[in-house]
Amino acid sequence: MTFTAQIDIMPLKELLDPQGKAVMGGLTRLGLGQITDVRIGKHITLQLEAADREAALQQAEDACRKLLANPVMEYFEVHIVE
Amino acid sequence: MTFTAQIDIMPLKELLDPQGKAVMGGLTRLGLGQITDVRIGKHITLQLEAADREAALQQAEDACRKLLANPVMEYFEVHIVE
Repeated sequence: MTFTAQIDIMPLKELLDPQGKAVMGGLTRLGLGQITDVRIGKHITLQLEAADREAALQQAEDACRKLLANPVMEYFEVHIVE
Repeated sequence: MTFTAQIDIMPLKELLDPQGKAVMGGLTRLGLGQITDVRIGKHITLQLEAADREAALQQAEDACRKLLANPVMEYFEVHIVE
């Protein structure tokens, strides 16, 4: 079966996000001052073949741990979609 | 009221994603050959003040059109979370 894994990889909450701060400054200058915080990470979609949903989730998490996410600075969230 | 906008900004589907192809090669070499496609984009979270959910959605979409997404190469999806 084919599954799609929707993965969000974000900077750890306790870390400063300089990229986010820079974008927030830009948004404020564009007149969007109601935005009080910006955090920027990666959104990755994986198409994968797996026996079932559990196996698909396992593979996606494996990909995150082995390559996609840097555990020192990032956390990841995986959602499996059929 | 404070809202959180969860934004995914991805390369247009018809565009080649060289970054995704490179990552897929890496995953295959790590033994995750069941992954048949990889697409990489940005995940951005915005904290914003708005009168209601509709106004929050409007602001987040405004931010995407004005700064966060490049309409020539990317599309965006916004989800508002209270």
